Amino acid sequence: MSSSIPAQRYAARIERAQSLLARHRAGALLIGVGADLRWLTGYAAMPLERLTMLIVPPAGRATLVAPRLELAAANAATAVAAGVVDVVTWQETEDPIALVARQRGVGAGGDRAARLLVSDRLAAAFLLALQSALPGAPFALASSVLASLRAVKDDEEVELLRRAAHAADRTVAAIAAGRLIGRSEANVAREVRDRLVDEGHQLATFSIVASGPDSASPHHDPTDRIIEAGEPVVLDIGGSIEGYGSDITRTLWVTGGDDECRPDATFRGLFDTLERAQAEATRAAIPGTKAEEVDAVARRIITDGGYGDAFIHRTGHGIGLEGHEHPYLVAGNDEPLIEGHAFSVEPGIYLEGRYGARIEDIVVCREGSPDVLNEAPRSLAVVSGT
Amino acid sequence: MSSSIPAQRYAARIERAQSLLARHRAGALLIGVGADLRWLTGYAAMPLERLTMLIVPPAGRATLVAPRLELAAANAATAVAAGVVDVVTWQETEDPIALVARQRGVGAGGDRAARLLVSDRLAAAFLLALQSALPGAPFALASSVLASLRAVKDDEEVELLRRAAHAADRTVAAIAAGRLIGRSEANVAREVRDRLVDEGHQLATFSIVASGPDSASPHHDPTDRIIEAGEPVVLDIGGSIEGYGSDITRTLWVTGGDDECRPDATFRGLFDTLERAQAEATRAAIPGTKAEEVDAVARRIITDGGYGDAFIHRTGHGIGLEGHEHPYLVAGNDEPLIEGHAFSVEPGIYLEGRYGARIEDIVVCREGSPDVLNEAPRSLAVVSGT
Repeated sequence: MSSSIPAQRYAARIERAQSLLARHRAGALLIGVGADLRWLTGYAAMPLERLTMLIVPPAGRATLVAPRLELAAANAATAVAAGVVDVVTWQETEDPIALVARQRGVGAGGDRAARLLVSDRLAAAFLLALQSALPGAPFALASSVLASLRAVKDDEEVELLRRAAHAADRTVAAIAAGRLIGRSEANVAREVRDRLVDEGHQLATFSIVASGPDSASPHHDPTDRIIEAGEPVVLDIGGSIEGYGSDITRTLWVTGGDDECRPDATFRGLFDTLERAQAEATRAAIPGTKAEEVDAVARRIITDGGYGDAFIHRTGHGIGLEGHEHPYLVAGNDEPLIEGHAFSVEPGIYLEGRYGARIEDIVVCREGSPDVLNEAPRSLAVVSGT
Repeated sequence: MSSSIPAQRYAARIERAQSLLARHRAGALLIGVGADLRWLTGYAAMPLERLTMLIVPPAGRATLVAPRLELAAANAATAVAAGVVDVVTWQETEDPIALVARQRGVGAGGDRAARLLVSDRLAAAFLLALQSALPGAPFALASSVLASLRAVKDDEEVELLRRAAHAADRTVAAIAAGRLIGRSEANVAREVRDRLVDEGHQLATFSIVASGPDSASPHHDPTDRIIEAGEPVVLDIGGSIEGYGSDITRTLWVTGGDDECRPDATFRGLFDTLERAQAEATRAAIPGTKAEEVDAVARRIITDGGYGDAFIHRTGHGIGLEGHEHPYLVAGNDEPLIEGHAFSVEPGIYLEGRYGARIEDIVVCREGSPDVLNEAPRSLAVVSGT
């Protein structure tokens, strides 16, 4: 699979992480499989029970500890192939934790009081083993160094996010134009996954299809419920290209071509409020605005519309190599948005037992006005669904 | 999505875990999102950055701490719906770690010296936060209690594994019967994923298609390499039904219908050794055999065949709600197999730069003779691929 991120980008990322490590007086980054590893090296390792761990000391070369049978995959990672990162392997009957503990910056030499920064999603099994192998060593989270770096997307990253967003836009358009009535949510969700890949994603990641009362549950898992005329369908779907995700939500209303089954006044009013909230929150997302203020803009409009209690989640989350990452647009997060931050703006209104709606775009923070990656129309799509 | 595991099964599992907790003098199980949670409650929660955690004290009721916006999903979980487990939710701006720390068996009352057992894959971010909120509390892994329980499959679990195995068998048969020559590995891998679902899996989980020299890499990630006549293709594929996985490997050889392109003598000899190793290892997998002995049986035959150095991984892994779980068939694991253990038996031989082969079945340990779930023929499938 060809890569859009050149090797020198990984070298620069490792260098920037190292300069922050030195400034934080941390001992090393200990990065397990996941987005941090992929961001630092281009290695999309499989999430195995076998330890794979990148060790980044404050200065000098980074070392990837990998299971012997993953060597070919590790060697193919951009930063490894380009000689930016060294690889050390362990055999099936060796102890990989001992191998990590011997690396420079970890147990060997250096400052015993320096914190070791583990990737946030490192499995507890590995962290407890490291704590046991390095008694007294202080551990903290790698996000203290990496989150702010990863949150600001470079040009290649924005273009991958844009490609994924447009592929998701086309998927929504195809689903809205097709038959919905008489099909189960699960059946439509399957079509969504197929289309996400057909439209250019390498992986389909998630596919929420929530109809009728199910639309009042933000993270509804599609069921065998049959979609009927006269109800909303919330589509919240996404996939990834080279690890970079799409995440779009659109709300449809299916009528079966019957004018009696058009949206009722409550839903139209609710959706009108939601649409204004989403648009105003997006407009607010420019450099210098606090993350929590974007949330507050959306919440104010929805509260004024009488639905404050029905907006039961934050307004958005960062997106990149993880579907949810920094920055989070939530009350209490007073970090200012900066140029290159990429995140969702996705208010929703949920009337339990009845119905709900949500609109979500992926937005990149830019001076002047935000770069909204999704281009699919946001207004309520009233479709026949036949 | 209907469930094959009845509510009373979850109640019994929680009770058995509790009796082990009491015997180990542990304070509580702290179970994050993942296979442990699903096994204890039926809740297949999304792996969010928001904390979801089941707290199981040594006696009394278990409590599920969940984000407010996951409430509908949590309530739909079998053990919650049946009233076996209580739910407590937290709002977007609350601290879920503090909520966990207040639960019975954790920070509230009880023995401060009692170990808290966290799920093995709990994210480091949550574990470090718990360690910080509960200073001095000793933490250990939940697998010390749960692994042995989860490793023994009950009848419903075996039937789910069998359904998944047969769906994977049919997928292999369809791929072997179809065109391969002139297609990329990635293209075939896409077809595998589609067929895994068409044949009855709810999710396609992985799809290794490794052709020619790529077949020498056990965990090869399919690329744009075009499959040609006169080379092997290793298919290692799997999906899941209600979380229970399939995992089958078969080795094909594509000829393009050209007798000149049939397998060479080296490959035929290598495959013959491999086939005997896999069959003998399977036959050995009966109650009382040590896990490492199954590995040793396969390794002995492959070593005698002259390929000891080319068998670079363990012989197998348990399978259930995780693709890889206890018991592991690896040197050093002297635990005896017992009735109901389910695992892969999958020796391989890899000649770097040239080619490789692997055969894998899912096997359930049974008195007398093992129950081999896969039924697809194991011999080298020489196909035209046109």
